[in-house]
Amino acid sequence: MLVMGIDPGSLVTGYGLVGEEGGRLISVDYGVIRLQERGHTDAIAVRLKVLFDGLCGIIRRYSPDVVAVESVFLSANVKSALTLGHVRGVVLLSAASEGLPLVEYSPLEVKKAVTGYGRADKHQIQAMVKTLLNLDRVPEPHDAADALAIALCRAFGGGARGRRGRRWSAAEVKR
Amino acid sequence: MLVMGIDPGSLVTGYGLVGEEGGRLISVDYGVIRLQERGHTDAIAVRLKVLFDGLCGIIRRYSPDVVAVESVFLSANVKSALTLGHVRGVVLLSAASEGLPLVEYSPLEVKKAVTGYGRADKHQIQAMVKTLLNLDRVPEPHDAADALAIALCRAFGGGARGRRGRRWSAAEVKR
Repeated sequence: MLVMGIDPGSLVTGYGLVGEEGGRLISVDYGVIRLQERGHTDAIAVRLKVLFDGLCGIIRRYSPDVVAVESVFLSANVKSALTLGHVRGVVLLSAASEGLPLVEYSPLEVKKAVTGYGRADKHQIQAMVKTLLNLDRVPEPHDAADALAIALCRAFGGGARGRRGRRWSAAEVKR
Repeated sequence: MLVMGIDPGSLVTGYGLVGEEGGRLISVDYGVIRLQERGHTDAIAVRLKVLFDGLCGIIRRYSPDVVAVESVFLSANVKSALTLGHVRGVVLLSAASEGLPLVEYSPLEVKKAVTGYGRADKHQIQAMVKTLLNLDRVPEPHDAADALAIALCRAFGGGARGRRGRRWSAAEVKR
């Protein structure tokens, strides 16, 4: 079972793939796709295509079984919600386009799953991602670490709320 | 020159294609793609895929030269902005995926272009769409009429703000 976690952001979208090897959870790959303006010709639509093609390419390369994303914390800023919505819509579409089930977790669920503590801060979560996945250091940029945390939440069987999601059985997650 | 107008909505997305025949602007096709929940298995990601596939299919069928969309009126509601953002991101992506330039117009620009009057109401705009395109009746649902209005704005050479957009020349719009 391979889980792809995605952390959508207006400028940088992180991804992280968590699999299992010899009874341990491992990081198969992680990284980011940047959406910053690269030049005058890169309008928002073109940047969304870079994101879509990037995500679909990663999905085809690794063939994960499920995609996990965080549900959105609704800030007070309408404009940033719209921009994040553009990115998030394309992220959700990339999973559906490749025929993958999608599960969503709240930030609280991710924190609790990874650190056991609902009030953990960003640094604590990143440190736990490093520890749980036996990495030499905290993954950079932090968007990639956040994506791995979301994937870990799914791998630990965090309440799968996606209609097509299912929890890993104990036999699948040998920890 | 064929213009595809798209009116993105959280539940219903309208589209309308405006072309030219014998020196007159004509409606080549119009309609809507519905995103309402069709059943338990239709999660948001799957519904976005229905929208994406639908739009790409229409683009491939008619091969428009440009896609025109309205820029967003930012309401006070953060949640609806996020939802609309999901849909709008997929709309923008569909244009980029098919390699089409994209132009955006404010609601005010569309009103002025179609009715000559910045405070025109919805019904006035729809009536003008019917008149300008020589239709037997106002296109239904209204989302399709709104999409035709956006396409008309582009056809009339409304300030093309997309970086890759260009105005129609007088020779192209023989009105």
